[in-house]
Amino acid sequence: MPLRFTSERHLDDGVVERAFTLGEIPGILWTPASAPVPLILLGHPPLGLDRMYPRLVARALHAAADGFAAATIELPGSGDRPRWDALEAARSELRRVKQAGEPVSDEIIDALILPLVDKAVPEWQSALDALLALPEIEGPVGYSGGVISVGVRLAATDPRIAAAGLFAGSFVPRAILDEARRVTIPLHVLLQWDDEGNDRQASLDLFDAFASNEKSLHANMGGHTGVPPYAGDAAARFFTRHLK
Amino acid sequence: MPLRFTSERHLDDGVVERAFTLGEIPGILWTPASAPVPLILLGHPPLGLDRMYPRLVARALHAAADGFAAATIELPGSGDRPRWDALEAARSELRRVKQAGEPVSDEIIDALILPLVDKAVPEWQSALDALLALPEIEGPVGYSGGVISVGVRLAATDPRIAAAGLFAGSFVPRAILDEARRVTIPLHVLLQWDDEGNDRQASLDLFDAFASNEKSLHANMGGHTGVPPYAGDAAARFFTRHLK
Repeated sequence: MPLRFTSERHLDDGVVERAFTLGEIPGILWTPASAPVPLILLGHPPLGLDRMYPRLVARALHAAADGFAAATIELPGSGDRPRWDALEAARSELRRVKQAGEPVSDEIIDALILPLVDKAVPEWQSALDALLALPEIEGPVGYSGGVISVGVRLAATDPRIAAAGLFAGSFVPRAILDEARRVTIPLHVLLQWDDEGNDRQASLDLFDAFASNEKSLHANMGGHTGVPPYAGDAAARFFTRHLK
Repeated sequence: MPLRFTSERHLDDGVVERAFTLGEIPGILWTPASAPVPLILLGHPPLGLDRMYPRLVARALHAAADGFAAATIELPGSGDRPRWDALEAARSELRRVKQAGEPVSDEIIDALILPLVDKAVPEWQSALDALLALPEIEGPVGYSGGVISVGVRLAATDPRIAAAGLFAGSFVPRAILDEARRVTIPLHVLLQWDDEGNDRQASLDLFDAFASNEKSLHANMGGHTGVPPYAGDAAARFFTRHLK
């Protein structure tokens, strides 16, 4: 898919932010003045790039200060991308069982996550193809945050991903747990101990499943959005250790 | 108990290492050139100060470089201190059940740990009384590492301890789990995911029990002595955040 830049904005410290489209998929690339540099892919929850922008640009500026480019693309069915009926139905069903106080079944988790992973991962790989062809970007590549199952499959299947910082903040299908056993790259896993939307034991099982010789779990207090600033600093040091 | 310095040695970067006795208890104090400074108490496993010295001095020099004094004392029944028959009996029993492949019962854990905590904690508090009276030392005080149950009781009961970095690397009696619910100071807990001598679920339960608003669990790969260097750096940053 062709990557086409659609706008450009200059941020502090020489960082350039460029919006792009990859075929029909919107995305953003941030590059520091020191390019060519390694790249960190910024994963995010499926809430739309516009809504996620403040947190994404903060992460991108942190990455740029550490000497990394950062890039992200819209997830399928989110933001301005076409509505995806199967995903909407799975989200409705999740809301229903939560309101009814029923347990979230494996079937609901599978319906919510697996189609998203199946569709998103090839898109992130296409974005990587296009981004690595730019003169400002060189390897190695890290993947950071976002829907953890997307990160797991990318880490398990794409040899260009050299290190991953994952956020244990969403449901994980059993099939993804099996894929985790094939992940061998260095991992830095963040877990919010009291995450209201996340099953703690499932996150610990996922961490245990990874085959990586170097993997660290950093668990902090608070809910889903309460990640403390020093946790971000620790993740940044992880990428500096492995991508520099 | 009176603290009496018995020898003095000058290490790199102006760090002074002084051996002392606190009554009959041997100890070591390290102070950086920048005194007066906050103090970190260096906990350690009950293997004797002589055997632990290389690791203790490395931790003390790291602390000194960050602007902290560091001090440690011999645990009861360890090193050159009088042999403690009840503790030796509990250790023999632990070795026997491990060799026989039997589960380690709550009774064995209690017999191994509780008398040690009961005797050691007042000794560390006496050391703190004496150390805080020295002109080179000022508050606040951190406790780092060692028998985790000793750290838990110190953190739960001594208001002079402002932050604790604990190593989830030894058995934890159920009674200590109850004391953990009264700990409210900032905590940094290190867990070796594949620690051969440690029950992972018990460590996670202990971490969950702490009432602290700020607590972080850092789990890394490897066995009991395989703590990676970057884990030590993270613990050092924790103390700098809370004691400076």
